[in-house]
Amino acid sequence: MKNLKTEFQDLPEEYQTLGGRGLTSTIISKEVPPTCNPLGPHNKLIFAPGIVTGTKAPSSGRISVGAKSPLTGGIKEANAGTKFAQMLGRMQIAAIIIEGKNEGDDYYALNLSQDNAGLVNVNKWVNRGLYEVYKEIFEERGEHVGIAGVGIAAEMLAANTGIAFNDPEGLPSRYSGRGGLGAVMASKKLKFIIIDETGAPGVTLADEELFKKGTKKLLNSLTTHDVTKPHGALNSYGTSVLVNIINEARGLPQCNFSVGQTDEAAQVSGEAKAEEIKKRGGTRPHSCHPGCVMQCSEVWTKKSGKDPVGVLEYESVWALGPNCGIYDLDIIGELNRACNDLGMDTIEAGNTIAVAMDGGLLEFGDGERALELMDEIRKKTPLGRILANGTEFTGKAFGVTRIPVVKHQAMPAYDPRAIKGIGVTYATSPMGADHTAGYAIATEIMGVGGEADPRSTKKAELSRNLQAATAVIDSTGYCLFTAFAVLDIPEGLEGMVESVNGVLGTSLTVDDIGPLGMDILKTERDFNKAAGFTKQDDRIPEFLREEKFPPSGEVFDVPDEELDSVFGD
Amino acid sequence: MKNLKTEFQDLPEEYQTLGGRGLTSTIISKEVPPTCNPLGPHNKLIFAPGIVTGTKAPSSGRISVGAKSPLTGGIKEANAGTKFAQMLGRMQIAAIIIEGKNEGDDYYALNLSQDNAGLVNVNKWVNRGLYEVYKEIFEERGEHVGIAGVGIAAEMLAANTGIAFNDPEGLPSRYSGRGGLGAVMASKKLKFIIIDETGAPGVTLADEELFKKGTKKLLNSLTTHDVTKPHGALNSYGTSVLVNIINEARGLPQCNFSVGQTDEAAQVSGEAKAEEIKKRGGTRPHSCHPGCVMQCSEVWTKKSGKDPVGVLEYESVWALGPNCGIYDLDIIGELNRACNDLGMDTIEAGNTIAVAMDGGLLEFGDGERALELMDEIRKKTPLGRILANGTEFTGKAFGVTRIPVVKHQAMPAYDPRAIKGIGVTYATSPMGADHTAGYAIATEIMGVGGEADPRSTKKAELSRNLQAATAVIDSTGYCLFTAFAVLDIPEGLEGMVESVNGVLGTSLTVDDIGPLGMDILKTERDFNKAAGFTKQDDRIPEFLREEKFPPSGEVFDVPDEELDSVFGD
Repeated sequence: MKNLKTEFQDLPEEYQTLGGRGLTSTIISKEVPPTCNPLGPHNKLIFAPGIVTGTKAPSSGRISVGAKSPLTGGIKEANAGTKFAQMLGRMQIAAIIIEGKNEGDDYYALNLSQDNAGLVNVNKWVNRGLYEVYKEIFEERGEHVGIAGVGIAAEMLAANTGIAFNDPEGLPSRYSGRGGLGAVMASKKLKFIIIDETGAPGVTLADEELFKKGTKKLLNSLTTHDVTKPHGALNSYGTSVLVNIINEARGLPQCNFSVGQTDEAAQVSGEAKAEEIKKRGGTRPHSCHPGCVMQCSEVWTKKSGKDPVGVLEYESVWALGPNCGIYDLDIIGELNRACNDLGMDTIEAGNTIAVAMDGGLLEFGDGERALELMDEIRKKTPLGRILANGTEFTGKAFGVTRIPVVKHQAMPAYDPRAIKGIGVTYATSPMGADHTAGYAIATEIMGVGGEADPRSTKKAELSRNLQAATAVIDSTGYCLFTAFAVLDIPEGLEGMVESVNGVLGTSLTVDDIGPLGMDILKTERDFNKAAGFTKQDDRIPEFLREEKFPPSGEVFDVPDEELDSVFGD
Repeated sequence: MKNLKTEFQDLPEEYQTLGGRGLTSTIISKEVPPTCNPLGPHNKLIFAPGIVTGTKAPSSGRISVGAKSPLTGGIKEANAGTKFAQMLGRMQIAAIIIEGKNEGDDYYALNLSQDNAGLVNVNKWVNRGLYEVYKEIFEERGEHVGIAGVGIAAEMLAANTGIAFNDPEGLPSRYSGRGGLGAVMASKKLKFIIIDETGAPGVTLADEELFKKGTKKLLNSLTTHDVTKPHGALNSYGTSVLVNIINEARGLPQCNFSVGQTDEAAQVSGEAKAEEIKKRGGTRPHSCHPGCVMQCSEVWTKKSGKDPVGVLEYESVWALGPNCGIYDLDIIGELNRACNDLGMDTIEAGNTIAVAMDGGLLEFGDGERALELMDEIRKKTPLGRILANGTEFTGKAFGVTRIPVVKHQAMPAYDPRAIKGIGVTYATSPMGADHTAGYAIATEIMGVGGEADPRSTKKAELSRNLQAATAVIDSTGYCLFTAFAVLDIPEGLEGMVESVNGVLGTSLTVDDIGPLGMDILKTERDFNKAAGFTKQDDRIPEFLREEKFPPSGEVFDVPDEELDSVFGD
């Protein structure tokens, strides 16, 4: 970015079998100094589609974005499901690496097509909401392009900033949301990446037959497992099916982690939302990218089907809703729209508002005021700058000591006191508090991949196994939700591995998944250690260890030794 | 504080020979969990006068305040010169320990007399400037009391908050300023400590003759050394004598560490200030506590001698002046008054404004706007909350990457690129960037304690020796400025040690100083390690390692190995 140059490079031999998170984390580990300023010239921002992304493998349209995180100070991978990923795969682009930093005042877009790449001034799209800008980009460049972009919040180099990818409707609703990657992109003065896959050769399959055989097995498992099958839980109600389930488990944090179960939660459940979408004429089910068989997504709209927002995921609904004492889907939808429009992660944003409520800036439940806060961010006021910097920052500004973060990143929608395995993942993941890093909920609550008592504190092994498997899935390009099926259906898992072998020409087996995942995690943890992380960063905040969580009365009581045994390093 | 109880306890045997920083750091190390929330119930705030404090030893009226710092996240000792310290010494109170946390909304004062201690509601003194409140306290309680207090900034639990002690005029101008100790006190709902020494027995001298012999030698050295003698540099011009000296050395950071030498700097020199004080009818020289022979202090006033502020120290003048591009002593004086009034550290506050200027909130040199920012803090607006949280926080809010901090604490008035030994101290001190932790300027610039080329990167030994000596001096209760004399005059150093032996009945020698100091530093660094600090926390920020510093063109190029060899742990 320093001199606005672009260059195509061949993928080095050593990276040939990597994709997605495995590739982003490896490049960061090799090329980014762990102690560098995340917003300085030495950080690199890397976009990498998964190994099978761009093929016809089901539910495989994922892209990983990686960098040193300005939020956590450690390595970060955040992934999203979007056609953008599939386009890159078909263009045979293993990764886009954004490096250096332009010192001027202008913002640029990277225009990338099969044979050309160039940077153009896009000041006309600066300081504007992404819904409007994405619409203009599609109008200007055609509906066939794919867009990655950062919003107004990133222009402030704020720590709660994600990278927005377009969904099938062209809305900026598919996010590599976590860890402030939007600010990394904006710090380099890159505002958008616009890709045009015209003439793309498609993904080369090393063994087409094996690939087909594998994807068929995987497809079969996805379409038969209760969680992922057509008219199954995810397909019918989306991820928000969890509202009632987690509330029932007394683990749905509400009013900034003050209570784990309320009657009001049902008002924002997946069931209630699906019903409302039907009434409004929104879309449900829906997919985040073509070729997804689970179709857990949706298009939420205002009443009468107006002004589509995109999906309201469970964690977004929770963060912007119950955790703020807000039980109104219309308010939550508009808060989610604002996050998408400004370029912010909904989980961090909801926690931010909740912490501000705890600090007295506004009352719990005051949705109208919460929406006004989003305008503070839009106007880049001092208050907006506080909020755009996320949960911990806002907590400090308002003198709050109840700040639910690990490695400075806010916790998602599962209270670690009531469901301890997910707490072990929050604590020990190299990514900071992140449910997707090792989704213990699957086993502790949903009975997927075995069963585990949510109250048991022996969760190191569960979290470790899930974190390792996740690191591999995040590298393949498969949606993490494929794990629900493949954890329970051995043939599905075999099929997944065969599909990867079919693309790469490798001969990986199911037994390689654990070690491969641990390798990726080691790369990431080594980066973090070199950046100054210690065991003390693998801890749950004091208030969650000491404050009893109504109505269960639980505290987070997993011993430090159990946490440290997850990686034993 | 939880139940508003007070208790007198005998000093445990193991603490009998400790005082000041040695005592605060030892108690914190033993009683405060290193990973606790600094603003939570497990942190303890400790006030301890030095070993000889309260005796007639010259320049010995120092108090150490310690806690886990909400700014650095590590152990903190910040000390001040004030009669308050001497009163505690004469009352034979080795330490005041504030523990627990009151969960109510009210604020309290600790009233402490020879035989009584109690907590009283002082809501009437909340949300008001400390100049006004200290005046009321003296009116209400008599001019003989001593006051420690926290201001409006601390009520926000902000990280740039110090503890104000009264100066001889009763002004809140003597600060244990650094590291956010004000917020720790306020988090416990303690607003003031008011002490009345009526009936105090005085310090018991184990060997009065030895004490007298030692203090005489020390006094002799202080009154003969060029730096500390009557009509010497400190006495004539105060610490601001350094403005011209450091500017001449091209090491006076200006406009947020952008340039190290300007012609304008002379306008705020110690010489210019002394002249102006004379014209206005302020006071110069002056002492921060009775019995100081160096008398480096002063009382700065508005024109015609109105509205005394108290001292304008070199680092305050620098931070609020040249580092903000402000070269007007009247503006600087009013900014300093605002810091004192609101309960903030001037070094952190000046860096905060400078970083905000770098981020475009206001122009470099805009003193009027800088003063308005102080009112934002007073009104507790969102912008005020950003600023009250200090330099790094403000830098992040305004998207600045040039943030001059170590361990999250802002650098003082000496650029580490031009004067590298002080940079080694900034990097490696357990306190964060702190010139007083190992004042290499003495040797590098003033030729005290030997000579060292400021550009040489071999500074580990110098910094180590100074850090160790400082840890001991901070424990004795002697002003750090006695070091100028005792580093050069062996008899003075002997006298200092004899005076300590005279109080304690110990038989320490000059050779014990190094090991004793290293013990204190080890205690502090061990606390920090247990809190999660690593070598990566002993580093100077990226921009100072890469951005050439005009006019010298230097960068901070001390190798990491040299930094790590300071403590070799």
